[in-house]
Amino acid sequence: MSAAVNPEPAERQVLPERHDSAGGAEGPSIVALGGGHGLYATLRAARRVADAVTAVVTVADDGGSSGRLRAELGVIPPGDLRMALAALADDASDVAEWTETIQHRFGGTGALAGHSVGNLLLAGLTEVLGDPVEALDRLARLLRVRGRVLPMSPVALEIEADVQGLESDPRVSRCIRGQVAVATTPGKVRRVRLLPHDPPASPAAVSAVESADMVVLGPGSWFSSVIPHVLVPELFEALRTTPARKVLVLNLAPEPGETTGFSAERHLHVLSQHAPGFTVDHVVVDSASVPYGREREHLARAARGLNADVVYADVAATGTHVHDAAALAAVLADLASAPRGRTAIAPQGERKSASWQ
Amino acid sequence: MSAAVNPEPAERQVLPERHDSAGGAEGPSIVALGGGHGLYATLRAARRVADAVTAVVTVADDGGSSGRLRAELGVIPPGDLRMALAALADDASDVAEWTETIQHRFGGTGALAGHSVGNLLLAGLTEVLGDPVEALDRLARLLRVRGRVLPMSPVALEIEADVQGLESDPRVSRCIRGQVAVATTPGKVRRVRLLPHDPPASPAAVSAVESADMVVLGPGSWFSSVIPHVLVPELFEALRTTPARKVLVLNLAPEPGETTGFSAERHLHVLSQHAPGFTVDHVVVDSASVPYGREREHLARAARGLNADVVYADVAATGTHVHDAAALAAVLADLASAPRGRTAIAPQGERKSASWQ
Repeated sequence: MSAAVNPEPAERQVLPERHDSAGGAEGPSIVALGGGHGLYATLRAARRVADAVTAVVTVADDGGSSGRLRAELGVIPPGDLRMALAALADDASDVAEWTETIQHRFGGTGALAGHSVGNLLLAGLTEVLGDPVEALDRLARLLRVRGRVLPMSPVALEIEADVQGLESDPRVSRCIRGQVAVATTPGKVRRVRLLPHDPPASPAAVSAVESADMVVLGPGSWFSSVIPHVLVPELFEALRTTPARKVLVLNLAPEPGETTGFSAERHLHVLSQHAPGFTVDHVVVDSASVPYGREREHLARAARGLNADVVYADVAATGTHVHDAAALAAVLADLASAPRGRTAIAPQGERKSASWQ
Repeated sequence: MSAAVNPEPAERQVLPERHDSAGGAEGPSIVALGGGHGLYATLRAARRVADAVTAVVTVADDGGSSGRLRAELGVIPPGDLRMALAALADDASDVAEWTETIQHRFGGTGALAGHSVGNLLLAGLTEVLGDPVEALDRLARLLRVRGRVLPMSPVALEIEADVQGLESDPRVSRCIRGQVAVATTPGKVRRVRLLPHDPPASPAAVSAVESADMVVLGPGSWFSSVIPHVLVPELFEALRTTPARKVLVLNLAPEPGETTGFSAERHLHVLSQHAPGFTVDHVVVDSASVPYGREREHLARAARGLNADVVYADVAATGTHVHDAAALAAVLADLASAPRGRTAIAPQGERKSASWQ
């Protein structure tokens, strides 16, 4: 795996210009979709390989500081947006102090305990400017973000899931509502929906996906941070039709709660289930997380359902369950410069980039 | 009244260079001491006449958002500091949106209701940077403040007052603690103290006073925002010995609560009581607030106790109880360029600048 054997990637590898991209003079661009710590990891990788990175962030969180702010002030949950800004903030020391402040959480046991300063600031900016995207752009300028952080929808969303295994009859399915409830259910999540159904997409997020050179989906909480992106109709349509190279990054391990016991291919199956007809070009998998030939066969078959090949690489930070930014960046850079294996409409059998498999 | 008859002051009159000032190449500087809305008014005026304005702000507030933050997080009360930053913020539109955000208060009835975004941000910056002055400097850079906002003390202070008239026997004095309690007492405030006694001054505030061209004290809540400055020993010493021209700006009207029924000269008496030996060069008084000859005689006598002359000018914004920034600026500019009437050690009888009286 060429991606995996590059132990010391250049700190900043610039993607080659795409000839079919709209903006001629501008550098290449990556759009990363997800939420939470998974998106943070992708963004730390993407900023190493692209001049401009756009984060498209789930807005269905109802826990912690974000949940309290959406309940109290009616703003979109700011936590994952704030983390994405921090991931893309300039490293210069004067900005780093702002980034640290944005990420800082108040302690103690009082009314502010657990609120991060950046969440409060985003909520305040949103109230003053009247638009969460303007608020994000304003904070992005303070943090000298090269790129943009956008909510997938301009309105706060809720997640609702059909969950089995909560009743004595394991076939009985119950509807569980709320991101925290879904993420921590002891049952088996079968299907998730967004409320409101068919929510609006952020127009800027749709444009970013349409004009990107590469789109990266995942890693992240599968049902509550990754799949929601394909449940926003306009965003799904942009993801389906974009000429960008599409990369799906699998989690390093199943998450306790929503994906307990899920195999790698199961992750792909549930994504397909929620987004019929959705395809990607590449599925990036940590070599150690799917070590065996038989599992890899299953995974390859599931990937073919998405019209994708599977890219194995050592992308886990040593001794952790998080992606290593440099290692993931090397994979993304390799994929960006690799010959295009097929278009989204190529028949599943024809696989030109077999080396990836 | 030369100060009063300048109806359309220049938007920005620069103070003349002081020959006895330390920094040769730098422009003139004004240090304004106070708190709350009174200080805000002085700062809006001072920025019109000086290149660099330093605000020195009381830190004894225990009410509202500031009170909740000092109680919950142990920070110095940020509200008056935030307002001073807003008063000195650049007017450019990109900064103005930040200023508006800093000043924005969360509404509703939840845990955040009443907190201003700037207070929360100052508290967060202070926790991250470990120093309230660094936090203020950081926020000042964001707001492109030309000058500086400093707490009078690096630690949160408490105000304690001896108040008469709370018992059936009017001679009995009771000790009332806390800024809000003192400001709203139905009794008569006789004396205030700071807790801790002899609190440390911010070294930067002391330096600013020592090297200023002009020092302006007041207007503001007399017992809780003005007098506290002379109760910090190092700050009092700097105010006593600075070669700067010293201006005391009287309130436009007594404040319900702490100075109910106070005449103008009573304000000067209680200041002298709290700071024996303290002198100023000029006392600026709104013409309409002390309209009569007899009252003006009393005020002149009280001013002589501070070694000061009295400057009458129309400094109230029409139909309000707040100072008009342009009118107050014109007075400050005139005073700055007027010949020095006397030194701080001149005998009280010799009054060269009788025209001011």
